[in-house]
Amino acid sequence: MDRDQLFAKLDALQIETPSWGYADTGTRFGKFLQPAAAATIEEKLEDAGTVHRFTGCCPRVAVHVLWDFQEGVDATETKRAAELNGVRIGSVNPNLFQDQIYKFGSAGSPNPEARQEADSHILRCIDIAKQVDSDLLSLWFADGTNYPGQDDLIERKHRMRNALSRWHGAMPEGMTMLVEYKPFEPAFYHTDIADWGMSYVFAKSAGPRARVLVDTGHHFQGVNIEHIVAFLLDEGMLGGFHFNDRKYADDDLTLGSIDPYAVFRIFLAIRLAEERHGLPTGHIAYMVDQSHNLKPKIEAMIQTAMAAQELFLKAQLVDLAKLSGAQAAMDIVDAEGCLKDAFARDVRSLLCDWRELRGLQPDPMSAYRASGHLARIEAERVARREAAGVVAGGSYA
Amino acid sequence: MDRDQLFAKLDALQIETPSWGYADTGTRFGKFLQPAAAATIEEKLEDAGTVHRFTGCCPRVAVHVLWDFQEGVDATETKRAAELNGVRIGSVNPNLFQDQIYKFGSAGSPNPEARQEADSHILRCIDIAKQVDSDLLSLWFADGTNYPGQDDLIERKHRMRNALSRWHGAMPEGMTMLVEYKPFEPAFYHTDIADWGMSYVFAKSAGPRARVLVDTGHHFQGVNIEHIVAFLLDEGMLGGFHFNDRKYADDDLTLGSIDPYAVFRIFLAIRLAEERHGLPTGHIAYMVDQSHNLKPKIEAMIQTAMAAQELFLKAQLVDLAKLSGAQAAMDIVDAEGCLKDAFARDVRSLLCDWRELRGLQPDPMSAYRASGHLARIEAERVARREAAGVVAGGSYA
Amino acid sequence: MDRDQLFAKLDALQIETPSWGYADTGTRFGKFLQPAAAATIEEKLEDAGTVHRFTGCCPRVAVHVLWDFQEGVDATETKRAAELNGVRIGSVNPNLFQDQIYKFGSAGSPNPEARQEADSHILRCIDIAKQVDSDLLSLWFADGTNYPGQDDLIERKHRMRNALSRWHGAMPEGMTMLVEYKPFEPAFYHTDIADWGMSYVFAKSAGPRARVLVDTGHHFQGVNIEHIVAFLLDEGMLGGFHFNDRKYADDDLTLGSIDPYAVFRIFLAIRLAEERHGLPTGHIAYMVDQSHNLKPKIEAMIQTAMAAQELFLKAQLVDLAKLSGAQAAMDIVDAEGCLKDAFARDVRSLLCDWRELRGLQPDPMSAYRASGHLARIEAERVARREAAGVVAGGSYA
Amino acid sequence: MDRDQLFAKLDALQIETPSWGYADTGTRFGKFLQPAAAATIEEKLEDAGTVHRFTGCCPRVAVHVLWDFQEGVDATETKRAAELNGVRIGSVNPNLFQDQIYKFGSAGSPNPEARQEADSHILRCIDIAKQVDSDLLSLWFADGTNYPGQDDLIERKHRMRNALSRWHGAMPEGMTMLVEYKPFEPAFYHTDIADWGMSYVFAKSAGPRARVLVDTGHHFQGVNIEHIVAFLLDEGMLGGFHFNDRKYADDDLTLGSIDPYAVFRIFLAIRLAEERHGLPTGHIAYMVDQSHNLKPKIEAMIQTAMAAQELFLKAQLVDLAKLSGAQAAMDIVDAEGCLKDAFARDVRSLLCDWRELRGLQPDPMSAYRASGHLARIEAERVARREAAGVVAGGSYA
Repeated sequence: MDRDQLFAKLDALQIETPSWGYADTGTRFGKFLQPAAAATIEEKLEDAGTVHRFTGCCPRVAVHVLWDFQEGVDATETKRAAELNGVRIGSVNPNLFQDQIYKFGSAGSPNPEARQEADSHILRCIDIAKQVDSDLLSLWFADGTNYPGQDDLIERKHRMRNALSRWHGAMPEGMTMLVEYKPFEPAFYHTDIADWGMSYVFAKSAGPRARVLVDTGHHFQGVNIEHIVAFLLDEGMLGGFHFNDRKYADDDLTLGSIDPYAVFRIFLAIRLAEERHGLPTGHIAYMVDQSHNLKPKIEAMIQTAMAAQELFLKAQLVDLAKLSGAQAAMDIVDAEGCLKDAFARDVRSLLCDWRELRGLQPDPMSAYRASGHLARIEAERVARREAAGVVAGGSYA
Repeated sequence: MDRDQLFAKLDALQIETPSWGYADTGTRFGKFLQPAAAATIEEKLEDAGTVHRFTGCCPRVAVHVLWDFQEGVDATETKRAAELNGVRIGSVNPNLFQDQIYKFGSAGSPNPEARQEADSHILRCIDIAKQVDSDLLSLWFADGTNYPGQDDLIERKHRMRNALSRWHGAMPEGMTMLVEYKPFEPAFYHTDIADWGMSYVFAKSAGPRARVLVDTGHHFQGVNIEHIVAFLLDEGMLGGFHFNDRKYADDDLTLGSIDPYAVFRIFLAIRLAEERHGLPTGHIAYMVDQSHNLKPKIEAMIQTAMAAQELFLKAQLVDLAKLSGAQAAMDIVDAEGCLKDAFARDVRSLLCDWRELRGLQPDPMSAYRASGHLARIEAERVARREAAGVVAGGSYA
Repeated sequence: MDRDQLFAKLDALQIETPSWGYADTGTRFGKFLQPAAAATIEEKLEDAGTVHRFTGCCPRVAVHVLWDFQEGVDATETKRAAELNGVRIGSVNPNLFQDQIYKFGSAGSPNPEARQEADSHILRCIDIAKQVDSDLLSLWFADGTNYPGQDDLIERKHRMRNALSRWHGAMPEGMTMLVEYKPFEPAFYHTDIADWGMSYVFAKSAGPRARVLVDTGHHFQGVNIEHIVAFLLDEGMLGGFHFNDRKYADDDLTLGSIDPYAVFRIFLAIRLAEERHGLPTGHIAYMVDQSHNLKPKIEAMIQTAMAAQELFLKAQLVDLAKLSGAQAAMDIVDAEGCLKDAFARDVRSLLCDWRELRGLQPDPMSAYRASGHLARIEAERVARREAAGVVAGGSYA
Repeated sequence: MDRDQLFAKLDALQIETPSWGYADTGTRFGKFLQPAAAATIEEKLEDAGTVHRFTGCCPRVAVHVLWDFQEGVDATETKRAAELNGVRIGSVNPNLFQDQIYKFGSAGSPNPEARQEADSHILRCIDIAKQVDSDLLSLWFADGTNYPGQDDLIERKHRMRNALSRWHGAMPEGMTMLVEYKPFEPAFYHTDIADWGMSYVFAKSAGPRARVLVDTGHHFQGVNIEHIVAFLLDEGMLGGFHFNDRKYADDDLTLGSIDPYAVFRIFLAIRLAEERHGLPTGHIAYMVDQSHNLKPKIEAMIQTAMAAQELFLKAQLVDLAKLSGAQAAMDIVDAEGCLKDAFARDVRSLLCDWRELRGLQPDPMSAYRASGHLARIEAERVARREAAGVVAGGSYA
């Protein structure tokens, strides 16, 4: 692959950042508040715009309906606010877990009022999506149970299946539903969509525009994620990713911070699906979903975007012809060597070149740090919070 | 449920024991040989017959084609030998991993000769199944890769899918194909059928008589197996079980020896599918797959059969009406209490009653130990091996 | 063991409940609020007293200094309030994680002010412990790092070691320091006290009155907890337990709700240490640490106390003479059978007898439910919160 | 660090390869035999010599007493054979698991004959070590139990502790005992030395020349190995490593094939211990312990040696001054960035330079492949085996 081809590939790698990644989040034990954390949708869009301005690869922002859209506010204004910040609204993310009515679940709850509330919320999300020109409805469920016997597993399956079908029917043509899975947390005994297989079955039964969403942190230790990715691509059922990293559970750390080689292998699986097997991959939604407990929000996002680009680029450098030969010859050492060789390459200067050609600073992180942006928004936002008398915090017990 | 109903349910719980569970097996570090271990199909059938004679619930024996059927031998003789021992042949298990040609896999191998060998072997297995009146072809694959890049994951998927379709086509009407999954071992980077989702997709594409086989030890730690069981039953895709227990990986310990409550919950999931949701469950093949490194083979099998009966019986004692009420009221403590109450019951005397009514000794383990059977076969088999000059052993490196 | 001996053993099994187990807690995604949840130390002590009144085995309450003791309040009043509710103050638990200053840790933080704050807090805790006549300082640290390179692991080790030594020096004679370990959460890359080995080394270096605290949920999947318990007992270093259960990570579910056999084995390990090896076990602090997201607080605590008693009692029923014989004969089936037999026993009526002899209702859960207590405190506490204008809640992002 | 310093560091990185890594090994499901696999100690030493000739960093060979030393053979001849191949004998590894007498363990067995056999074997190993001028006795135990109740955990602890003390006493001055831990396999319920904490306690009680051996594959998923390494170094108790990689359990894959960043972090932890904290690290034994089921043995070993050098070198490139500054400033992004920057560097040409300066071919793998060595030993060894009538193989059941 020559340099132009590589750069064209890089151009096509667009990573959506989540509005909630700019806000204060934490663990059940509390939040460590950052003066510069975004508290309003305007601030979040400003931050997303900043990340895109420095990285050039994050043109879309995932929105979270509960946190980003007040009742009665015109969503098209949010769309315009995004544009003013140089970004567009990407996936629309409902919230089906925070309200007290969701104590026993949302779509899967035995409580019909909770299911109705979920229905209404989703209709509102679809409406907002239309208003902001988004074509992605991204569904994550906290649904599940905490104790054996708490609820009927099959009954819950039926409720979930029916809800997804209903919601699929409510989506306009051209809109895609992404169905995320997660094996545990916050439900600790079972979750209604525990693994990719359940997402797959639910998406199949929901309708032709439902796909599986792979969050890299939503697997048991040892699961081979790139295998799942390849399998879903071959089935035409991979919809997108939530990128993050983890050492243990769903730690929501920045991408590639713990196991960069695994991310590289995921990008390679996608490349192989496309180049070797002619499978469509252009529709894959690359989205970030991280919780920046400790790292500064904007810097953490820039770090993840840069890590994604580096690992993506390394995956493009694998010599596929050589790999095919080694695989055909069943030469494991050589075949693996193709991956190791590409991963060993230092692609940072190549990325600097791409950035300069695209009118960006060669090192987005240094450039951002040098820009004084963080100090400016810290001052502004602290002042605004103080003026508004906002005191954040919260206690575990 | 009254006593007659419970006993009718117990009558219907038939557990198939595996011929290889009576032979010497071990770990990669070696085998600890038992004088009484079975070495021939005749000895294995004798042992299976013994287990059934004492437990009354193990009327079938799974056979393993490579180890149990010599080339040129008439399989109907094996069928008759089984009958002479009071048992029938159950599932037929191909061996697609031991021959050197399977170094890179069988159905999934890049080596066409390996795939051809696998095809031939499967045809022979189907033929044997017909001869022994078995209607279950039970497929476990060691297929996979050990290193990133070793082979093309999608290509392997296609090979596997095609093989399963071909083999499904070769099965006579009335025969069912069971497709087992396993996340790792002996392949350590990826396995071609890694989880229930892959088994499901492969079985769906193979044909209408393919189902998923759940081995209780083939999951990552923390996976909710009863959830998978319920999900598959609702999809009409659960074919059967390989029973065993484990603390870590695929340890192949006797059933319920580590986590008996989990086994109870699996039996309850099946009962709920049938009684609450009207789903068919009578076809489920309950099979044992254990490796008795240290425990005496026949005793280990009796122990597992007894454990299965106890945990099954406890699951039948759950008060479903009360459970439904608590679930509808979203009363977690009461709902869980229904399970805990049933599990807390001591069902051993009830089982003794069932056994006595069925003409069995009340305590199969004591009765077996008192019978002197073990000492007798030890003497016989040691003598036979010595006469034949057989020396077993093996070294890791 | 005869009935009187068993009952004497039951008398000695005292389980400390935590004040925070009566308050609203949740996951990072939010809290589901309960009208009856305790909000003040008075309410928590009332609830703990209620649990003890119904179970007869929970005479002590663990207190949490940050949440239970306001600056300037006389702790001896809290002691009296406990007594009025029929309980005593048990372990004193500092909070070294909620304050913003602990962003990078407490005793292990690179920030000297955080370490100083931790020192002051601990001195205050020791002072409170003296005032409430507690002899247990129970230390859990959220300390650790989230990313590779974030801090120097050895430097942090030295800081932690020095802090523990200092604090040990500040404890009066007769006070014991318990050092808890946890492999992850809320720190996701490393925790300063990650496993029992680190607790052991830290406790050894802190001084002669430091011991290891085992939280049953603070282990990786597959860890053999009873082995750690036996090992620590033999080393004279086991201080106590935090009881709870989990399916995946530190889920903080009620004891024995997921794997009751594992709890039974822990109790058996303690019994064997004492009866076979003559090791002291009377000092072991049995404490509950659960998070009742969904279950009613008082009922969840009663459930755990009852589960602990049942599993403890089963462990006392193991026939040790028979077990010794089987172990000496290396008869695995019989040896394991001793455990299985005891576990299979239904001990609920025996427990009812014990309760009636001790003047308790035979079934604490039913009795509590029948008492109308829950409805009464719900009404009271809702009214009090409304009067005070308290609105709880909180949002993840 | 300048180039000379880096090269001096590389000179000091010596990796011991294991004799058994050149022989046919496999999984419990069988071995895939390689024509070139070594079958005798002479062939193993020849192969180890070949690896050292091409890599320049593997001057020592670990020997395995059972497999490498026949009764009655003079061990000094083996020493000379090693020298003829350009290598020296490194650690001496007893075998305490293969003989049938070890069915219930070796040092921990309830069978006094097994313990006596283990004692004799160890004395023989120490004697051999003296003869071959080795100063490392490297102990791995398969000891443990498969079922709850099988044996008394504390009794086994005492037996193990006493054996290690005895053996320590039998070692000559200047010999070090390495105590390895492993959480499971081949024992599946508990292992007598399950984690680093147990190794630590046993080594402490054995005597001043006992240290902990860290096998990178002997941890539960998610364990932070570099933290353990740092902790042990600070305690003066790290003895050495068994290098390999894994995705799931103890897969024994080639180093860095699954998670190279983790290996880099281990090397960095060692560097920090030495350069920042002045802790001794020169004594650390870097040893390989892999099972090359599928990869050619010599190539797999060369691959691991090269991977170790690359990841070691990257760890030396971390800018420690910058890292200290960022850590002191609690700037997580920058601190982590120091690690990421060094890991992103392509160090292969630097390694080529080092090799050429040391008179080696720049790419050991290509050079080895071009040498025709593999074809030659294949021919020789096949012929030898045929002449001797050796037929290898083995069956799981």
